[in-house]
Amino acid sequence: GLDMDEIAWLTMAMAETGDMLDIDRKPIMDVHSIGGVPGNKTNVLVVPIVAATGLTIPKTSSRAITSAAGTADVVEVLAPVTHSLDEIKRIVEKIGACLVWGGALNLAPADDLTIKAERALSIDPRGLMLASIMSKKYAMGSQYVLIDIPTGEGVKVETIEEARSLAKDFIELGKRLGQYVETAITYGGQPIGHTVGPALEAKEALETIMTGKGPGSLVEKATGLAGILLEMGGVAPAGMGKKMAKEILESGKAYEKLKEIIAEQGGDPNIKPDDIPIGDKTYTFVAQTSGYVTKIDNKAIATIARAAGAPEDKGAGILLHVKVGEKVKEGDPLFTIHAESEVRLDQAIIHARRMEPIRIEGMVLQRIGNI
Amino acid sequence: GLDMDEIAWLTMAMAETGDMLDIDRKPIMDVHSIGGVPGNKTNVLVVPIVAATGLTIPKTSSRAITSAAGTADVVEVLAPVTHSLDEIKRIVEKIGACLVWGGALNLAPADDLTIKAERALSIDPRGLMLASIMSKKYAMGSQYVLIDIPTGEGVKVETIEEARSLAKDFIELGKRLGQYVETAITYGGQPIGHTVGPALEAKEALETIMTGKGPGSLVEKATGLAGILLEMGGVAPAGMGKKMAKEILESGKAYEKLKEIIAEQGGDPNIKPDDIPIGDKTYTFVAQTSGYVTKIDNKAIATIARAAGAPEDKGAGILLHVKVGEKVKEGDPLFTIHAESEVRLDQAIIHARRMEPIRIEGMVLQRIGNI
Repeated sequence: GLDMDEIAWLTMAMAETGDMLDIDRKPIMDVHSIGGVPGNKTNVLVVPIVAATGLTIPKTSSRAITSAAGTADVVEVLAPVTHSLDEIKRIVEKIGACLVWGGALNLAPADDLTIKAERALSIDPRGLMLASIMSKKYAMGSQYVLIDIPTGEGVKVETIEEARSLAKDFIELGKRLGQYVETAITYGGQPIGHTVGPALEAKEALETIMTGKGPGSLVEKATGLAGILLEMGGVAPAGMGKKMAKEILESGKAYEKLKEIIAEQGGDPNIKPDDIPIGDKTYTFVAQTSGYVTKIDNKAIATIARAAGAPEDKGAGILLHVKVGEKVKEGDPLFTIHAESEVRLDQAIIHARRMEPIRIEGMVLQRIGNI
Repeated sequence: GLDMDEIAWLTMAMAETGDMLDIDRKPIMDVHSIGGVPGNKTNVLVVPIVAATGLTIPKTSSRAITSAAGTADVVEVLAPVTHSLDEIKRIVEKIGACLVWGGALNLAPADDLTIKAERALSIDPRGLMLASIMSKKYAMGSQYVLIDIPTGEGVKVETIEEARSLAKDFIELGKRLGQYVETAITYGGQPIGHTVGPALEAKEALETIMTGKGPGSLVEKATGLAGILLEMGGVAPAGMGKKMAKEILESGKAYEKLKEIIAEQGGDPNIKPDDIPIGDKTYTFVAQTSGYVTKIDNKAIATIARAAGAPEDKGAGILLHVKVGEKVKEGDPLFTIHAESEVRLDQAIIHARRMEPIRIEGMVLQRIGNI
């Protein structure tokens, strides 16, 4: 594999093959999730919370590759996400934030080519992932970068040990690039919130930011990450960031900032959750037995949501009625598949029948009799 | 180690060194938990449910050795548990059930001696455990035996694979002894119900059997095990046992049978939960942070309850205010230690401060910054 110096040179070289953003507001914050946990609409909340304090956070995101929805797919339900670098500069200098698709920009264009070639040769996938992510942060001029590493069964990083080792690499690489990097190891063992798929996730994020209330996992993760950024950016005292983030969310200031972002990117800032069209072909799976939800399979949930049409069909996805640890009775709804066409709905149902996306267990796990 | 034939001969030889019970009611059912999960007052419910159908279940139990309360310690809060074999024969032939202390009887007396000697020599602990448990069932004349194998972190059997292997051994040994054995692998990753300690557990069991309602883990486990016994004993059709067990619990018939058992063993059948004295020296630990309960440490809970005085001080123990998966806010009560003396309470508090019996985690599991 590559050593850290080589990764740093590769990162800078990748960035310098393309355009660089030069924003006249400092410091520049950034946040990035390495991904893998379904329903992770978190940054739709984090960016407005951080920008509401006056910090600058020009967030570029990707679309889904293997997942059911990338942040760019979710934001696109609320506002256009394809903008030029000049347009981004104008927006961010005006309101301190954006939520755009990075793929439309000429940021580190060598990245995709290099990745394709070297992935085919199986050369140092970790070094390449680090360079790929950080080259784009470098091109955006980000000075303070928070990397979210979801950890748990069925995500990219399955153990805390692995997450810690990856965290160290990000921090080391950041030092060589002149960036101050922190990392948050977050719980990724089940989807975030109750929705998976672009429109369903946009609706859940919008409801949460409008009311200041939402699923525990979403609010806790968003305010936890935003809180770290507020401390990194020097607007919250050490240990007080999360509390401040929560106050900003509950006060409606984060919602005001999101409305500015939507408006500047060309969307309707007064969009309401009920305005968002959700796939109206639906099927609900119910519990076959009473018991406790002991597992929600991230990979199965993503597969079923994709079979239903996500991310291309924005209204396709999954609404979870339960989360891990909850008690259910036989016949209780577990999850609803939403699709825009009957054909995709049927596909998703076939996948859902074959997989066991939600596991229910009673106290008796197994009966073994006459063998 | 010993092979299965040797274990079978050892089991029968152990039984024949002592007295044998000859009850004139057939078939004779039995249930035994291999133990290790705190708060397991389950059989105080299972035995009355099974006997309420007319089946015969002369249950002998042990007192706590390393745990905070054995079934005999819990039952003793409600009624005397020390009876002669003749007295047990009379009770069981009259009402079909008992809940007594096995240690008062001359059942397989070679067992304790053999175990002591061979344990010191580290000879085949699994073979000895099998022989020890089954020799007592053999001496009681049990024909249909259900073995409960709690499985999970911090109990004797930590994995399902291990549980399955042990289950096979019990079933094989049963065949050689002329007994029909089934096993239930049950979830043992956290305490059963909300209480640990003789009086607290007796109170919870009595409340649950009187009202037909109680903590999910207790009701599910008790009706799950009782249901298997009802099917084994031929009073419930295959697959219908648990439903029948639940109906018997909810109808009050199990409570009527428990009252008969209490009366025949010399206790007050009209005892109410509020009549049971609980240690009045208490201390409540609260959550230091908001988040989700991700773990309750079985071993720590047992250690703290024993430090508080259980099982000798019957009123000592732990009341859990939360279970795994629940959401808590900073300052919410997590568990209350009950003791009968300030000295034991202080001891328990010291242990509880040092251990982390209940783990709370937010969505951000760890923040890694400048290293």
